[in-house]
Amino acid sequence: MEPKIGVIMGSKSDWETMKHACDILDELGVSYEKKVVSAHRTPDFMFDYAEQAEKKGLHAIIAGAGGAAHLPGMVAAKTLVPVIGVPVQSKALNGMDSLLSIVQMPGGVPVATVSIGKAGATNAGLLAAQMLCVQDEELRKKLQQRRDEMKKISLESSGELN
Amino acid sequence: MEPKIGVIMGSKSDWETMKHACDILDELGVSYEKKVVSAHRTPDFMFDYAEQAEKKGLHAIIAGAGGAAHLPGMVAAKTLVPVIGVPVQSKALNGMDSLLSIVQMPGGVPVATVSIGKAGATNAGLLAAQMLCVQDEELRKKLQQRRDEMKKISLESSGELN
Amino acid sequence: MEPKIGVIMGSKSDWETMKHACDILDELGVSYEKKVVSAHRTPDFMFDYAEQAEKKGLHAIIAGAGGAAHLPGMVAAKTLVPVIGVPVQSKALNGMDSLLSIVQMPGGVPVATVSIGKAGATNAGLLAAQMLCVQDEELRKKLQQRRDEMKKISLESSGELN
Amino acid sequence: MEPKIGVIMGSKSDWETMKHACDILDELGVSYEKKVVSAHRTPDFMFDYAEQAEKKGLHAIIAGAGGAAHLPGMVAAKTLVPVIGVPVQSKALNGMDSLLSIVQMPGGVPVATVSIGKAGATNAGLLAAQMLCVQDEELRKKLQQRRDEMKKISLESSGELN
Amino acid sequence: MEPKIGVIMGSKSDWETMKHACDILDELGVSYEKKVVSAHRTPDFMFDYAEQAEKKGLHAIIAGAGGAAHLPGMVAAKTLVPVIGVPVQSKALNGMDSLLSIVQMPGGVPVATVSIGKAGATNAGLLAAQMLCVQDEELRKKLQQRRDEMKKISLESSGELN
Amino acid sequence: MEPKIGVIMGSKSDWETMKHACDILDELGVSYEKKVVSAHRTPDFMFDYAEQAEKKGLHAIIAGAGGAAHLPGMVAAKTLVPVIGVPVQSKALNGMDSLLSIVQMPGGVPVATVSIGKAGATNAGLLAAQMLCVQDEELRKKLQQRRDEMKKISLESSGELN
Amino acid sequence: MEPKIGVIMGSKSDWETMKHACDILDELGVSYEKKVVSAHRTPDFMFDYAEQAEKKGLHAIIAGAGGAAHLPGMVAAKTLVPVIGVPVQSKALNGMDSLLSIVQMPGGVPVATVSIGKAGATNAGLLAAQMLCVQDEELRKKLQQRRDEMKKISLESSGELN
Amino acid sequence: MEPKIGVIMGSKSDWETMKHACDILDELGVSYEKKVVSAHRTPDFMFDYAEQAEKKGLHAIIAGAGGAAHLPGMVAAKTLVPVIGVPVQSKALNGMDSLLSIVQMPGGVPVATVSIGKAGATNAGLLAAQMLCVQDEELRKKLQQRRDEMKKISLESSGELN
Repeated sequence: MEPKIGVIMGSKSDWETMKHACDILDELGVSYEKKVVSAHRTPDFMFDYAEQAEKKGLHAIIAGAGGAAHLPGMVAAKTLVPVIGVPVQSKALNGMDSLLSIVQMPGGVPVATVSIGKAGATNAGLLAAQMLCVQDEELRKKLQQRRDEMKKISLESSGELN
Repeated sequence: MEPKIGVIMGSKSDWETMKHACDILDELGVSYEKKVVSAHRTPDFMFDYAEQAEKKGLHAIIAGAGGAAHLPGMVAAKTLVPVIGVPVQSKALNGMDSLLSIVQMPGGVPVATVSIGKAGATNAGLLAAQMLCVQDEELRKKLQQRRDEMKKISLESSGELN
Repeated sequence: MEPKIGVIMGSKSDWETMKHACDILDELGVSYEKKVVSAHRTPDFMFDYAEQAEKKGLHAIIAGAGGAAHLPGMVAAKTLVPVIGVPVQSKALNGMDSLLSIVQMPGGVPVATVSIGKAGATNAGLLAAQMLCVQDEELRKKLQQRRDEMKKISLESSGELN
Repeated sequence: MEPKIGVIMGSKSDWETMKHACDILDELGVSYEKKVVSAHRTPDFMFDYAEQAEKKGLHAIIAGAGGAAHLPGMVAAKTLVPVIGVPVQSKALNGMDSLLSIVQMPGGVPVATVSIGKAGATNAGLLAAQMLCVQDEELRKKLQQRRDEMKKISLESSGELN
Repeated sequence: MEPKIGVIMGSKSDWETMKHACDILDELGVSYEKKVVSAHRTPDFMFDYAEQAEKKGLHAIIAGAGGAAHLPGMVAAKTLVPVIGVPVQSKALNGMDSLLSIVQMPGGVPVATVSIGKAGATNAGLLAAQMLCVQDEELRKKLQQRRDEMKKISLESSGELN
Repeated sequence: MEPKIGVIMGSKSDWETMKHACDILDELGVSYEKKVVSAHRTPDFMFDYAEQAEKKGLHAIIAGAGGAAHLPGMVAAKTLVPVIGVPVQSKALNGMDSLLSIVQMPGGVPVATVSIGKAGATNAGLLAAQMLCVQDEELRKKLQQRRDEMKKISLESSGELN
Repeated sequence: MEPKIGVIMGSKSDWETMKHACDILDELGVSYEKKVVSAHRTPDFMFDYAEQAEKKGLHAIIAGAGGAAHLPGMVAAKTLVPVIGVPVQSKALNGMDSLLSIVQMPGGVPVATVSIGKAGATNAGLLAAQMLCVQDEELRKKLQQRRDEMKKISLESSGELN
Repeated sequence: MEPKIGVIMGSKSDWETMKHACDILDELGVSYEKKVVSAHRTPDFMFDYAEQAEKKGLHAIIAGAGGAAHLPGMVAAKTLVPVIGVPVQSKALNGMDSLLSIVQMPGGVPVATVSIGKAGATNAGLLAAQMLCVQDEELRKKLQQRRDEMKKISLESSGELN
C-alpha cells in the first residue's frame, strides 16, 4: 500500500519519541513510511524528500526534531503538503528550544506544531489521521471509536483513585 | 457559498490578530465564517459550535486566543475536524502563556499550533488552505503562485538593502 | 455525608499529586468526593459536573491538571462555585505550562491557583477548608491547631540541624 | 457597613491595577476597605492588619504586590481568612517575578493566586464575591447576571468583526 | 563566643544546602548560630529574631529559602543588619522561583542575593566573612589564604585533565 | 574626604540606573567615587581598580552592568572588598541575562546581587551603607530615619487611593 | 574587489539590525556582499548560495534571522565556510526564540552565535574580521586600533557621569 | 608540534564536557593544548594566557564555563584571537545561565557561542577546525570526509528504526 503519511525525524535517537506517531497510524490502519531525514547532516536528501512528497501521494508529513530543530520548517518550505512538527525533548533545555525552533515560523510557511515529546508524537499521528478522514469515512469512525474508548477509560478511572 | 473554514476567536480584541487569517482565506478564495466564541464567557455556545462543525461541512477550524487560552483545545476535544490554534500575544507574558496553553495538549486531542500573533494567524490561514488543496487543484495552484510570488519578492529585496 | 468539596483531576496519573489535597480534607474531617474529570477526554461530563456542583451543595471545587491544563478554567466558566486550580508538574516543562494555563485566566472567570505539585495540592485542601470555616467554627479550630502544630514542629526542628 | 473584604496593596503605585478589584466589589455592592500595606516598609502594620482581619469580620483579603511580592503570602501566614494574591506587572520581568513570588507558596499556607495585572485584579474581586455568595443569595444572583451579561456581549460581538 | 553571624533557613530540609554556609564559617573560625526560622510557619518568631539581631551583635544574617521565598526579604525589612539571601533549589522550577522571590526586592530594603543552591550557600558564608574582615585582619588573612589555595588547586588541576 | 564606596559601571549608558545608588549615598552622606570601568573594553583598568580597592580604603564596591555582565564577578575575583552587583535592564532580555550573569557565581567568589534596574541600584546604595553602619552609629541613625520615613509615607498613602 | 564576507539575512526587515555588521566591515575595509536569503521563502537559492560560498572565496558568512531562525544553521549544513549567526530580536519573544533556534545546533554542524540584535550584528562583523586577520596583518592593526579607541572612550567617559 | 588551538575551561569538572572538543581536534589531527583557566580563581593567569595567545601562535581559543560564565568573554576582551564559547550545563538552571552569560556580549568584543553541553563542545572543535582550513587544504578534506561520513550514517540509520 502506498504510504499516505511520511514520518521523518532528525536522528535515530528521536525514534523513541516518534514511534508513538507510528503506533497511532498502525492502530488506525493508516499507511506510512518512516525515515531518518536530517536537516543538518543530509540537507540535500531532505530537499529531495520534500520535493517528492506531493508526487508520492503523501497527504501529510510528520517531522520530529530536537534542539535547533530545523527539519519541520525546512520541509514545509519545500512542499505544500501539510507538515506537522513534533518538538523532541532536548537534554539541556527540556524541549523549549525544540518547541520555539519549530513553532515560531514566519508568515508564509506554516508548521502545525504539537506538544513536546511522546504526547506530541501521539497527537501528530492523530492530527494526520483527522486530516485524512475528510475523504475516508472508515477512518473517521475509527477515530471516533478511539475517542469513545478514551472517554470510557477516563470515566471508569475514577473508581481507581486510591 | 457554504463556509469551509471556521475562524473563531476568544474575544473581539483578538480580531486585530485573527483578521490576518481571514485575509489569507479571502486572497485564496476559500469560503469561511468568522465568529467570537469564548471558552470562558460562552462555554455552551463553544460546545454547540464544535459539535456542529462537521455537519456544517467545516474542513478546519482556526481558533485564536490569548493568556490561559482554552478555546482551541476545548473545541478540538469536541470535534474531529482539525483545529489550528493561534496563540494571541498577551499583555504581560507576550504570548508565552498563550502558546503553552495551546500547544501542550495531552496525548489524544491534537491542536495544530502556529506561531504567536500576526504571523501565526497568516500561517493558520495557509495551513487550512493546504489541508483543503488535497481535493482542490485550483487552490493548490493559488498556493503555489503565492509561494512563487513570495520567492520573487524575497529575491528582489536584496537590491533594496541600503 | 454529602460532599462539600469536589476534588477532580484530568487523569488518573494526577492522583499522586491530588491525593495530598484529599489527605488534608481527611485530616480535617471535611467531606469530599474525588473523580477523574478530563476536559479533553470527557468534555461533556466535565460540563455536567460543573453544572451540578452548586445544586449538589459543593462549596468549592479543587481541580488539578497538567500541561495545557484546561480543566480548572473550564469548570470555573460553568459554575459560580469557587474553583481552586492545582498545576500538576509536567514532564518536559516541569509544570510551568500547567501553571500558566491555569493562572492566566481572562477577566471574568477566576481560578484560585496554588503552587505546582504536591505543595499546591496540600494548599488547595487547606484553602478549601479556610473558605468553609467562615460557617464552621469547629473546622476553624482544627485549622488553627494545624497551624499551631506546624509552628511547633518548625521551632523544634532547629535542634535537628546537624 | 462593615467591610467584608480587605483590599490591600504593597504601594500606592499598585492602585492602577488594584482599583479593578474595587470596581468589581462596587459593582456587586460588596463592602470593602482599601489600604496600602507594605510587607517591606510597614511589616508590623501588615502583621497587625492580618491579625485583626478575622475579628473585623473580613471574609477574604485581596492582596496585590509586584516584584519580590511578599505581601499575600505573609498575610496568609498570619490569618485563616482566605487570601487572594494579585501579581502586579513588574517593570523588568513583566510580572513573572510577582507571579512566582505569590503562587509558589510552601505546603501549609495557601494563597489563591489570580492572573497578572488588571485581569487578575478583576478576577480577585469576583473570586471574593463567589466565596461570599454561599451565604448571600442576592449576591449570587448579581454574579449570575454579570455572567449572563458577559455572555450576551460576547455573542453579539461576532457582528462587530470587521 | 557570641555568634557574629545568624544562619537561618525556612525549613529543616534546607539544611542540606545551608550547611555549606556553616562549613565556610567553621573553616574560617567565624562564630555563628543556626536556626530554622520559617516565614510562613513561624512569622512571629521570624520578626522577633530579626528585631533582636542587632542587639545580639549579629553582623550579618544568612537566610536560605526555596519557592516563594519570603524569609530573606522579610527579615531584611525588620533589621538594618545586612541580610544575605540564598535561593534554595526548588523541586518544580529548579530555584528560579526562589531566586526571583529573593532578589527582586523593591527599592528601600536590600537583600544581598547569591547563587542558587550549594555554591550560593558557600558564597553566603564567604560574603559574610568579607563583611567582617574590615574589622578583623586575622580573618582577612584567612580569606586571602583560602583564595590562594583555590588558585593553587585550580592551576594544578590542568595536569589532571584526562 | 576619602571615598568609602566605589560605584562603577560598565558603560556611561548605565549611569541612568546607577545614579540611584549615588543618590542614596549622597542622601546618607557616605563618601564615594564613581567611574566607568568596563570589563570588556578596559579589562586591565578593571583589574587595577580592583587591586587597589582595599588599599584605597574602599569598604564596598557597587558594580552595575547589563547583558553578559562580567564586571561585578571579575572585580569580586580580584579583591576581598565586598562587591554588590546591580543587573542593569538590557534591551532584548529585560535584564534576565544581566541577573543570571551576575548572581550565578561559582562557589568561592561571592557577589551580593540586588534587583534589576533602578530599585536594585537604590538597594545597592542602602546595602553598602548598612555594611558601613556597624562602625558608624551616626549612619545607622540616618538609615533608621530613612526607614521610619518610608514607613510614614507608606502608611499615609492609603488616604490617597482614589 | 572580491567579497571576503557574505552578509545575508532572512528578510529585508532584518537590515536594520544587520547593517551594523556591514558598518563594521566598511569601517575596517573588509570587502563583503549583502543579500536577502530566506530559508523559508527561497530555500533553493539558500542552498545555491551556501554551495558556492567556498568557490567564491568567502572566508565567513554572517547570517541574521529572527523567530524560528533556520538560515544560519541550514547554510552551515551546506558549507565548511564558518557561519556566524545573528539572532534578530523578534516581536513577541524578544529574540529568545531566535537565539535558541540558532545556537542550539546538534553536534556536527557549528554556528558561531553572537548576541541578540544590534550588538550581535556589530560583533558578527568584528568576529569575521578577527578570523581574517590571521592572514592580514594590516587588518589586525585596524582591529587593535579599534580596541584602543574603545578603551580610550571608555576611560574618558567617567568624566561625563553627571 | 606547536598547539594551534587552546582549549580552556573554568574548572576540572568541565572536562567531561570539554573533552568532546579535544576528541574532535584529535580526530582531525589539529594540535592543541588544554588547560584549566578559571576567571574567578585565577584571574591573573587568565589574563596572561589571553595576552600570550597570539604570540604563541594560537589560531582560536575554545573556552568552556558554566553558571555566571565569564571566562570566554574575559579572554575575548584581552586578545584578537577568535574565542569560541561553550556553555557548560549547570546544575540548577540547565545551562541557560551559562548560555546567556556567554552569548550576550556587548558590541565590541565578540564570543562565538555554540550550543549547551556536549554537542556544543563537539561543535567548538569543528568550528575551530573550519577556521583553520582556510589555510589548510588537508584539514578541509578531513572535515569534508567527516561530513560525508555523518551523511552516510544518517542515511543508513533509517533502516534501524524499529
